[in-house]
Order: sequence, then C-alpha cells, then structure tokens
Amino acid sequence: MTKRINNFSAGPAILPVEVLEEARDNMLSLGDTGIGIMEHSHRGKAFIAVLEQVEADCRKLANISDDYSILFLQGGASSQFFMVPMNFLEPTQTADYLLTGSWAQKAAEQATRYGKVHTAASSKDRNFAYIPKTATYSEKPAYVHFTSNNTIFGTQWAKEPETPKGSTLICDASSDIFCRPLDVSKYGMIYAGAQKNLGPSGVTLVILRKDLMGRGKTDLPEMLQYRIHADNESCYNTPPTFGIYFMGLVFKWILKQGGLEAVGAANTAKANVLYQYLDKSSMFRATADADSRSLMNVTFVTGKEDVDNKFISEAKKAGFDGLKGHRSVGGMRASIYNAFPKSGCEELVAFMGDFEKKNG
Amino acid sequence: MTKRINNFSAGPAILPVEVLEEARDNMLSLGDTGIGIMEHSHRGKAFIAVLEQVEADCRKLANISDDYSILFLQGGASSQFFMVPMNFLEPTQTADYLLTGSWAQKAAEQATRYGKVHTAASSKDRNFAYIPKTATYSEKPAYVHFTSNNTIFGTQWAKEPETPKGSTLICDASSDIFCRPLDVSKYGMIYAGAQKNLGPSGVTLVILRKDLMGRGKTDLPEMLQYRIHADNESCYNTPPTFGIYFMGLVFKWILKQGGLEAVGAANTAKANVLYQYLDKSSMFRATADADSRSLMNVTFVTGKEDVDNKFISEAKKAGFDGLKGHRSVGGMRASIYNAFPKSGCEELVAFMGDFEKKNG
Repeated sequence: MTKRINNFSAGPAILPVEVLEEARDNMLSLGDTGIGIMEHSHRGKAFIAVLEQVEADCRKLANISDDYSILFLQGGASSQFFMVPMNFLEPTQTADYLLTGSWAQKAAEQATRYGKVHTAASSKDRNFAYIPKTATYSEKPAYVHFTSNNTIFGTQWAKEPETPKGSTLICDASSDIFCRPLDVSKYGMIYAGAQKNLGPSGVTLVILRKDLMGRGKTDLPEMLQYRIHADNESCYNTPPTFGIYFMGLVFKWILKQGGLEAVGAANTAKANVLYQYLDKSSMFRATADADSRSLMNVTFVTGKEDVDNKFISEAKKAGFDGLKGHRSVGGMRASIYNAFPKSGCEELVAFMGDFEKKNG
Repeated sequence: MTKRINNFSAGPAILPVEVLEEARDNMLSLGDTGIGIMEHSHRGKAFIAVLEQVEADCRKLANISDDYSILFLQGGASSQFFMVPMNFLEPTQTADYLLTGSWAQKAAEQATRYGKVHTAASSKDRNFAYIPKTATYSEKPAYVHFTSNNTIFGTQWAKEPETPKGSTLICDASSDIFCRPLDVSKYGMIYAGAQKNLGPSGVTLVILRKDLMGRGKTDLPEMLQYRIHADNESCYNTPPTFGIYFMGLVFKWILKQGGLEAVGAANTAKANVLYQYLDKSSMFRATADADSRSLMNVTFVTGKEDVDNKFISEAKKAGFDGLKGHRSVGGMRASIYNAFPKSGCEELVAFMGDFEKKNG
C-alpha cells in the first residue's frame, strides 16, 4: 500500500486508519452476509442492526438521554443553517446569533429569511481572532445559536456561552464534535456535518431535544421537518447508509480510545505540541488569541506572505499536506481532528524548526 | 473473501464488483496521493480532478450537451420532489403529473404546496400495473413530471410520454437511469438518487437544462436553488465526495461495457430470462402488463400468499436475497439493475423451476 502522508486538510479530513481498514474490508461483504455494506437495503435486517448500533454508540459516547432524538440527515451543516430557523423561528420572533466566523455568519444570514436576527456578540472587529467574553441577548430569543469551533479562524469556545436562563442553545459543532467531553443536556440541538470528526462528507449528525422538535413548524415539506425524520428513524427517505455505517465505526473507535475524556486529553496534548512551538518561535506565530485557541484547527502565520508560501510549498514536498490557510486569514492552518496522530504534530514541529533555522 | 450472494435488493442495491474493488483499493490512498478518497479536501486538486472526470464521463455516456448542467446533490429523489415545484411552479400555475406509482404520487403531493397539480394520467385503477397509453394535459403546464420506472410496481415507460409541443418534461429516473440509451435533449430535467443504478445512497444526480434552471425562483435558501449549486460546480457546500467518486467509477464501468446501447441490450436479455420463464410458468406470473414491464424490477406472484412466503424463505436460504415484494403489490420482486449479472437471473429461474416442480 502507498505510504500515508500527514493530511492536515480542514475537511473532508483524515480518518482513523483502523476505521478505514474495517470499512474497506466490508466493501464487498458486510461481515459474512455476502452483500457489501453499500449494497444492503436500508430496510433490511443487516442495515437496521447497523443503524441501531450507531445510535446506541452515539448515546453511550456523549451520555445522550432519551429526551433527545439522534438523526442522520443529508445536506451538511449548510442545510441546517436554513432548516433551524425555517423550523424554529417565527416572523415575529428574534433568534440570537454569536458571530465568531464565516460559518456563524452564514448561519445567521439564513435566519433573516424567517424572522429577526440579533447579533448577541461578534468578534468581527479583529477578523474573528477571538471568542467574545460577553454577549448581549435579546429579550426572549427563540434560540441562541453558536459555532463551537471556527475552522477558518482557529478559534474554539472553551465552554458553552452563558445564556439567559431558559433559553434554547443550538450549536453548529461540525468541526469539533466529540473532540472532548460534551454535556448534551445544555443544548436544544447540536448538529455536525460528518467530514471533520465523524466520517465521510454526506451525512449530518443531528442531536435534537424532543420538546424543541415538537415545536417545529408542520407546514413544511416532509424532508425539511425534523419530526418526520425522527418518526421514521432517519429512514423517511433512503439515508446515506455507508456514511452512517462509517460514523458508527468512528464512534466505536472513540469508545475504544477511552471515550471523550481520553480523546479530549489526546487532543489537548496534540494541540499543545503546536502551540508551545508557536509561542517560542521567532518566525511563526499563532493568529488566535491564547484564550480562544482551537484544539482542532491551529492557524499561524510568519507575517510575510512570501515566507508563508515558501513554507507551504516545502512542507507539501516533505509530505505535510493541506497546510495552506483559508484566504480570509492567510498563512497556514494545521487541522488536527480526532483522527490526526500526535506523531504528525511532532513531525510538523520538527519540520518547522528546520525551516526556521534555514530561513530565519 | 466471503462468497457474494445474489442480491435482488430494490435499493440500495448491487454494485459492480470491479467498481467496489477499485473503491476499496483507494480507501487508504487515492492512487499514490497517500490520502484516502474520503479524506481529500473537496477544494483540493485530487478531488477536483475526480469531479471533473465524473462530469465528463456522465456527458459522454448520455451525450449530454452544454445546454445542461450536471449537479451532484444530496437528499435523494425525495428532496427533488419538493425542490422541483418549489423552484419551478408558481401559485397560479399548473404542473402536470403522470401517476404511475407511489413515488410518482409522492412527487405530485409535494407540488400541491406550491401551485396547482393536474393528474394528466394515472394507472391507479389497476394498482399501477401498467403505463397509461394516453394522457390529458392541462392548457399550459409549468412542466410535466413522470417517473420513468416504478420500482414497486415493476413497470417502466417504454419511451418518454408524448407531451404537448413546447412543454418541459421532468423525470424521476432514480430506478432506471442509464439502463438503456437516453435522449437527454427531450428533457428539461432528469434526476436520480444514486442507490439503484449509480452508486451508494447519499448522492443525487441532477441533469438540468440551463434555461429552465434560470427560471428558478431566487428567493429560496441557497441550498435549495439549483443555480447556486451549478454556479459553484456542486461545491457550494461540501459535496458527498465518496459517492460522487463512486458514481464516476460506475460511469467508467458502463463506458467499458460499451455504453448505454450495450448495457440496454444486456438488461433486455436479463429481463427476458425472467419474463420468458414467468410467461410459461403455471405457478408464477408477472404482475405488470406485458407492454409495461420493467427491465429493472420484475414483480411476480403465485397468487397464494403462503406459497409466496415459502418461496421467498427457501430462496433466501439458497442465496437469493431481497426477493420479497413491496407490501403494496405483495409476492416477489427481483430487482436486476445494471450491475446485476445475467447468471443471477438464470440461477433464479433454475431455482424457480425446481420450486415449481416440488410444490406444483
């Protein structure tokens, strides 16, 4: 097999090798069924067993109670951006959004179609380089929406924003779900496109409190109503069976690591390798404020565009792929999701040290 | 490897072995990139090259001109059921639907949310056992929608319905796309969930004439506007990269068979093996009218529920899986999509002959 390289892609992103191997080995026959995982009917016993196990493992992983439905939808977080307000925001109501990056803004823009949108906090003044410490909420928000990790800007909420008592918290956790312990009971809804921490693109995990789901509008196309998907156990239409299966393998892999506590500790150690180097480097510096740094996306610059470009180019030749930062920040971004190994962070730091010596 | 069995599932369904093998072999590294197919960024060179090749092969396969956009969306045909009228039907307009089965009805039901729906023809009077020979259209339909193959009822349009000059034909071809030659220029739009003839569930192929796309509404969420997906080459949001890649392998596999002519001849030969047996059997009979029979889904009954059940159960033990018919028809259904081999049809007929002798 071709040697695997260090893949720092922001998403679709690196997946655990042993999970890839298991999916690969079930491609022509799921276990001894004689039918590949993608070829099983979503109504058949084999896939229904897969689906039930995936849900059970998801509940186990984050200790999710029966007050919540777990849905496997399509259309990515981008579909949730409009489905959330379409379902839960009336024209006379206000939804509060915490603007910590481009994706948070995109989510808020969709809500303006359905009701009023209040910006409770924003870090746009410094190009989203930090997580706001305070927020000013509207009087009775239909919900409060935030983006737990900002892929582009390398920032992450250290914990959930403090919101007025009784408010409904909705989170786009696409780029950091299950990267550390998570108290689901604080949320009305958590959604995440799979392609960063959960599996291949094309499946979206939605964890939705049932009482919130019940308040959703009923005059929408069935495919856009959460309750329809819940009532049909994500099989109202043919679900993305392979993506769901793969997500289940990832859940099992996290459980095998020791669950979210263990994965959180590993992610902190990985990120520290990079941030500690960046903090002492005289060439590179992290772009996010120290108290707002992401465990998942480490953004950094040299301050000189030509040096950034030289670094990215040489790193790529040396087997470090996907390090080019998003154009809104420039510089570099090392995405180190759950599946990214600590050894890859150490190798990158060693490479950066060499580069710094040669070009300093 | 576990021996593969005869998989007659209606969808998700059997996929070509050599395509499954190629996907499997690229799971941990796409070619020599050192990054698995699911782990490549959708913005990276490797995936963009895949995407461009998939579109080029799709155009080649069905001789699709530049007047059409080719989109890779999510949400299955079920999302197209509402997106089509949401985009193309004004409240004052009428859309004509040809009702040849449950899925055609579901498509029509969604349209009632957006405008007037006229049933131009229906075969409901005989439980959808035939394709109507005539249709009565409304005066100026916004479009005419039909379902080219009816998975549940085992019927298929032999050719496109005749429609008034200048009308826009829209087709749900989920269960028979690319099963035989197709003149795309007759259509305003063709859409198909992948999970029967194209690949794994979770990606929807949409072939859409650009002038029709241009008439779509502009005040919808971006994710629900076709033009947004076209303008962004199916990458407005993260597309289902693996499903698109897999679909491309299927296109190449069809081209290698000799294209749609060759595949059409093979499918006719396969279906004939079953229909010829059914026509001479004194125990089994096909449920669809002879002139309306599907090349893809062969539905049949014994006329006695207990015998049907015994047959299904014994067939399953003998390695013929997925033969239970949909509850709306009962009996049996052999789904024999493009990837299903003729040898499987011959084996089934031999098994049916034995069963008939023992139980006749």
